[in-house]
Amino acid sequence: MQLAMIEDNIIPAEKLDPAYLDRGIYFGDGVYEVMQTYKGKIFALEEHLKRFANSLTAIQITGVDINQVRTRVLKAFETADVPNAKIYFHITRGSAPRNHTWDAGLKPNFLLTITELEDYTEQKTKGIALATHPDWRWKRCDIKSLNLLPNVLAMNDAAKKGCLEAILVDENGLITEGASSAFFAVFDKTLQTSPLSANILPSITRMFVIKAAKNLGIEVIEKSFTPAKAISADELFIAVSTKDIVPAVKFDGHIIGSGKPGKVTKMLITEFQSFYDAIPDTQ
Amino acid sequence: MQLAMIEDNIIPAEKLDPAYLDRGIYFGDGVYEVMQTYKGKIFALEEHLKRFANSLTAIQITGVDINQVRTRVLKAFETADVPNAKIYFHITRGSAPRNHTWDAGLKPNFLLTITELEDYTEQKTKGIALATHPDWRWKRCDIKSLNLLPNVLAMNDAAKKGCLEAILVDENGLITEGASSAFFAVFDKTLQTSPLSANILPSITRMFVIKAAKNLGIEVIEKSFTPAKAISADELFIAVSTKDIVPAVKFDGHIIGSGKPGKVTKMLITEFQSFYDAIPDTQ
Repeated sequence: MQLAMIEDNIIPAEKLDPAYLDRGIYFGDGVYEVMQTYKGKIFALEEHLKRFANSLTAIQITGVDINQVRTRVLKAFETADVPNAKIYFHITRGSAPRNHTWDAGLKPNFLLTITELEDYTEQKTKGIALATHPDWRWKRCDIKSLNLLPNVLAMNDAAKKGCLEAILVDENGLITEGASSAFFAVFDKTLQTSPLSANILPSITRMFVIKAAKNLGIEVIEKSFTPAKAISADELFIAVSTKDIVPAVKFDGHIIGSGKPGKVTKMLITEFQSFYDAIPDTQ
Repeated sequence: MQLAMIEDNIIPAEKLDPAYLDRGIYFGDGVYEVMQTYKGKIFALEEHLKRFANSLTAIQITGVDINQVRTRVLKAFETADVPNAKIYFHITRGSAPRNHTWDAGLKPNFLLTITELEDYTEQKTKGIALATHPDWRWKRCDIKSLNLLPNVLAMNDAAKKGCLEAILVDENGLITEGASSAFFAVFDKTLQTSPLSANILPSITRMFVIKAAKNLGIEVIEKSFTPAKAISADELFIAVSTKDIVPAVKFDGHIIGSGKPGKVTKMLITEFQSFYDAIPDTQ
């Protein structure tokens, strides 16, 4: 490379900060995790680390020691001293002059941020509105990658309609999941969500919602459904790491059920709380 | 945000370089262009700027002055003083703490690099090998976005097989395009390529190839075809900004035609040269 230009500043290639050569920015060539902490403890740390390792393997980023990732996460969380936080981290394939294929020796880049958790009480007590958007994502949504432009565009479109989440609909007219969440409906006391596939993120919160349902003796059906069916649901909710379960009371402008968070959803929220209370102290 | 961590270094949030908060890295929330220069002149500059403006509009990045982009490109190219170069530039939505939706006031980030053009003579005279890969890209490939992980994975897979480009195949078994190029076949002196759609980049080199074909009186059919049909072609080639036309002599291990660059391909390469020779001096 001869030179680089950042805004109006021309920089000799050798003086360019490696941050500007991160393959994360050129290609989205990396994977990430978002975790919630509760009263000074990280929820589902091992589950997130396991999924992260799977994502790294799926896109062939090698040479990452998951134990080192765990150590970094714990050290940063201890330093931050924020009991209820959102922890985000990603690893990209590394920094190099732009070229689609990569050199075997490239050193992956690690970045982590810790943010105090927002107060979602209002969302959880009043419920939120949802809007559908075509699912424009790539065909390997089971990998938690940095290629999130379709999610960003869908959520911005939803926000314009006063909705806090976009529910993605595939070419067959079936709901896949939320742009940043799993999506559930309650039909006649039965819980329904899309089955895991290459088009669905193996959401850890989804897994715990299903566990909560089983604890409560609620039947769970993993089968895709349409927006029209969602509108007819007794209850709807999304599930996402930083908020766990958030009831949805509007879907594409239609009032869902009574227009208030439903009974099954509230039971699941209570049951989910028991998972937080059970986070081991061993961290 | 409370703090960030880069590798093992914990950094107070307020001291984090904005480069690490670029939405390009978190979401691939940006668009880009790659241009070739020839003997000190930029090929198809206006066409690239026009497509860039379209990409910005498509993902709703506002407040970018294309005239300023042109001025920056010309200034950087003049400073670099590399007659035959590859110019890459992107604009991302800006730097901000990670959040899918964006604030209206966000200032876009501009980055440009100039690299001396590699010598592609051997590829162009001997021809290259191609390998198919499932088209895992998102459903708006008409937008030249930074969400390129599927392209990266496909090209790496091709490279492992000794191939220089991956040819992407959709769920219907039809070829869309190359992971970083347009793709053409010659059947009985007729040129064939996929029609433009939401799944295909409106490639500028593709446009000039079609123009070259028309100049030569070669019929062009814009209709998708299968890998099996590609193997039966008389000639194959890819078209990409930095190399224009590169003959392909192997496709998934099958020898194409005589195993050497074909007659029609060579005629098109010669005709394409006339476009370079005609770049106006007005830059």
